Amino acid sequence: MQKECRIFEALQNKLTFRQRLQYMKHYFPINYTVNVQFEEVLRAANITRLRDQNVSELSLRFLWHSVNSQVLLKIWAVLLEKHPSWEYTRDLCLLFEQLAEEYENCNQGNVDTHIWDVVEQVLTGDAGSSRKAVHPKALLDNCAKVMWLLYGKLCK
Amino acid sequence: MQKECRIFEALQNKLTFRQRLQYMKHYFPINYTVNVQFEEVLRAANITRLRDQNVSELSLRFLWHSVNSQVLLKIWAVLLEKHPSWEYTRDLCLLFEQLAEEYENCNQGNVDTHIWDVVEQVLTGDAGSSRKAVHPKALLDNCAKVMWLLYGKLCK
Repeated sequence: MQKECRIFEALQNKLTFRQRLQYMKHYFPINYTVNVQFEEVLRAANITRLRDQNVSELSLRFLWHSVNSQVLLKIWAVLLEKHPSWEYTRDLCLLFEQLAEEYENCNQGNVDTHIWDVVEQVLTGDAGSSRKAVHPKALLDNCAKVMWLLYGKLCK
Repeated sequence: MQKECRIFEALQNKLTFRQRLQYMKHYFPINYTVNVQFEEVLRAANITRLRDQNVSELSLRFLWHSVNSQVLLKIWAVLLEKHPSWEYTRDLCLLFEQLAEEYENCNQGNVDTHIWDVVEQVLTGDAGSSRKAVHPKALLDNCAKVMWLLYGKLCK
């Protein structure tokens, strides 16, 4: 867990409310939205519900990481290199890439079947999945809040 | 014309290619568009055509000013005060406001009827007018190019 917690700490420093507000709200046009899959809107309430269903913590972290890697790439894709949020978003993408190594050993054997299916759908961009237009800041708010739920105690 | 030419000069300094690129392209998400009325897309080719129809130069300047005042307000309206293009857009709006005084005496007596009707439609946001989704930079490119056509020789 040591490396995972180091990355969690770095993400925490990058995902403060002030930075989410500045880079994902102030620097975007009013009411600007990014199209994501329905499953990419992963809220704290979803985690609570999944925990109630006894989904394992590893599965939940794997889900959070997979969803938000995709979400960040989608936000990054709408920015030119000279956009003032470009570097911030790239830095987040890089931290998620580093974290990916920690989930390399996740497979159908140690991840809950339902979660595995959702992750597969998110990663393949399944055309059957319904779409949602979401504000970039709302997406990063979800990312930060769920991260806290999953890593807060673990990395204390 | 003296005051008009001073404002033209100030606008020229604000509407350089470098600034239009930075504030209206780099600082917006890729493919971001603003909804404008069909008549608010006023290109150099329109001016050439209207000149061929012997529309007066005063009418053309009045048209250009009315259209671009509206266009700038529409771009400004999608920006929060902390957006890095907010101040730039506000400065342009202020210059257009200063210029408005020069067209205060324009009326149905000294402006070509066709142009007067178009300006009325633009200012009232006539619901009957068709809409176009246009990139902010393309709107300011039109603004700058037409300005050159109308003021370039006049303010030499």
